[in-house]
Amino acid sequence: MANEQQKREVGEEEEQVVNPWEVTAKDGGKIDYDKLIEKFGCQRLDRSLVDRVERLTDRPAHVFLRRGVFFAHRDFNEILDVYERGEKFYLYTGRGPSSEALHLGHLVPFMFTNVFYENMVKVAKCVTFNKVVGIFGFTQEDHIGKISFPPVQAVPSFPSSFPHLFPGKDQLRCLIPCAIDQDPYFRMTRDVAPRIGYQKPALIESSFFPALQGETGKMSASDPNSAIYVTDSSKDIKNKVNRYAFSGGQDSIENHRKYGANLEVDIPVKYLNFFLEDDAELEHIKKEYGAGRMLTGEVKKCLIQVLSELVERHRQARAAVTDEMVDAFMAVRPLPNMFS
Amino acid sequence: MANEQQKREVGEEEEQVVNPWEVTAKDGGKIDYDKLIEKFGCQRLDRSLVDRVERLTDRPAHVFLRRGVFFAHRDFNEILDVYERGEKFYLYTGRGPSSEALHLGHLVPFMFTNVFYENMVKVAKCVTFNKVVGIFGFTQEDHIGKISFPPVQAVPSFPSSFPHLFPGKDQLRCLIPCAIDQDPYFRMTRDVAPRIGYQKPALIESSFFPALQGETGKMSASDPNSAIYVTDSSKDIKNKVNRYAFSGGQDSIENHRKYGANLEVDIPVKYLNFFLEDDAELEHIKKEYGAGRMLTGEVKKCLIQVLSELVERHRQARAAVTDEMVDAFMAVRPLPNMFS
Repeated sequence: MANEQQKREVGEEEEQVVNPWEVTAKDGGKIDYDKLIEKFGCQRLDRSLVDRVERLTDRPAHVFLRRGVFFAHRDFNEILDVYERGEKFYLYTGRGPSSEALHLGHLVPFMFTNVFYENMVKVAKCVTFNKVVGIFGFTQEDHIGKISFPPVQAVPSFPSSFPHLFPGKDQLRCLIPCAIDQDPYFRMTRDVAPRIGYQKPALIESSFFPALQGETGKMSASDPNSAIYVTDSSKDIKNKVNRYAFSGGQDSIENHRKYGANLEVDIPVKYLNFFLEDDAELEHIKKEYGAGRMLTGEVKKCLIQVLSELVERHRQARAAVTDEMVDAFMAVRPLPNMFS
Repeated sequence: MANEQQKREVGEEEEQVVNPWEVTAKDGGKIDYDKLIEKFGCQRLDRSLVDRVERLTDRPAHVFLRRGVFFAHRDFNEILDVYERGEKFYLYTGRGPSSEALHLGHLVPFMFTNVFYENMVKVAKCVTFNKVVGIFGFTQEDHIGKISFPPVQAVPSFPSSFPHLFPGKDQLRCLIPCAIDQDPYFRMTRDVAPRIGYQKPALIESSFFPALQGETGKMSASDPNSAIYVTDSSKDIKNKVNRYAFSGGQDSIENHRKYGANLEVDIPVKYLNFFLEDDAELEHIKKEYGAGRMLTGEVKKCLIQVLSELVERHRQARAAVTDEMVDAFMAVRPLPNMFS
């Protein structure tokens, strides 16, 4: 009921829904990221900011920055100010452990320290049910686990949640790289932060990584053919890309030579945009493929090679990780060199 | 809004409100405990149950049981079955640490183990916002800390929340002695328990301990004269009882001798009901005072002596507690003898 009311008030939510639980484009089309920036009230991560990153670090920005995968931000300029002054900040990333080696149990003693819980309560006391309805679109039928969770996601934004890592550094700035659907959590966090005497976390926010079946599809755990997994073999990758990766190429070679590929919907090109490091090669592929001089099969072959190498590097790195290394990494400990 | 709606539906809630945050009798009168039993759906803790306790333990029941301070229960008979079979159960009590020696920080590493948190999430997922509105009368303006808390209070009811204490004893029964205002938390807990494969906790539920100013008053931290503290001196106790303890005696000795004291409202007698161990002496006082042969001053003198001895025993016991004992007591550890 509250959800419907909110939809009516916001208007365009009937058209596209982006929140931590649902990403749905208008009429089965593509997500309108410009509209998201406007609706969420975040800033565009434009070329001038990426230039500043490159000036400050004296090297090319990461492909995700220079190709606009991270397309929006909040206060990223302030993090760059901090960096420029030679001061420290910390990253809060939320990638869940993807296999049995790192299970959630590893995180809990780390998360549920006394201060961590105190911060959860501080945040929760600043947010009414009406407020989370406004931010997340919860309804009265939602279970209270959903309603309880936003403060849990919020508090790693505050260094005092990790007193063993950041003793006496309560004003240390935090940068959160995340997909744009996580913005509601941190909009709430940034709203609450000054009221409890903390710094707002800064964010850089990415677009969504598309499913193999195309940008309107969803990567789904129940459909293993919708995504490439780090555990896939080279044969799996080859099969998945060739059979399932949605092509923007034309339906006959004749038409393809004549009209060229539609790069806007082509998944192999989108995946290469994420994973092919070489800017010149990427530009070459886009130009030749878009002009119809390169065929889908050739682009897919390139993608299969890039992904196979990526997954193989990951496989080898992972095989080198011992249980002892995981335990040492996950141990609750100070980071002695961080503030030296 | 939801609160008002709920009040209209339930009806008598306009008259008396009893929940974990508010205890208000109808028209400034006394709490109607019979009505509470009916409304909450718990059972009367009657004489036959107390008799069974005495038979099973082969000694007189605690005064709080035999004088009806604990007046209601849920499944207490099942706990007695467990005891009779020679099996174990555990107590979940929630008395907050009352001084700096035991601070909340002591509890947190104990509380926020991995399983504890998992159980919180399990419970939270079974309870909708509408459900907690129905149980607790939350409104949409309430902060989400309030909405998040019921699962936190719920999970010590489940032995798997304390894997270091109760390894492999997931079906161990739990008994919760608490005041009746806590019933909503455990009504919710008992509703959820079978849905997540756990035993329902059993409860014995007490009436409220009255303020010195009388049963309709509230003990308030902001009014030190409304309660006797364990840190009060004998002089403090004497002063408070003589000046503030509401008397059921008549306004003149003549009237008192004629009509006797009104024991229904007399605070010294109510306090003696809690703290005077000797049943015969208590009966004697009630009889003599009620008949007007004993004066308020004499009853208060008796109460002052009982309370002074009680507080002095507590003071001495407390002085004997060292920091090391507190640390040893609070340490997260197995209880090796419990299941031997």
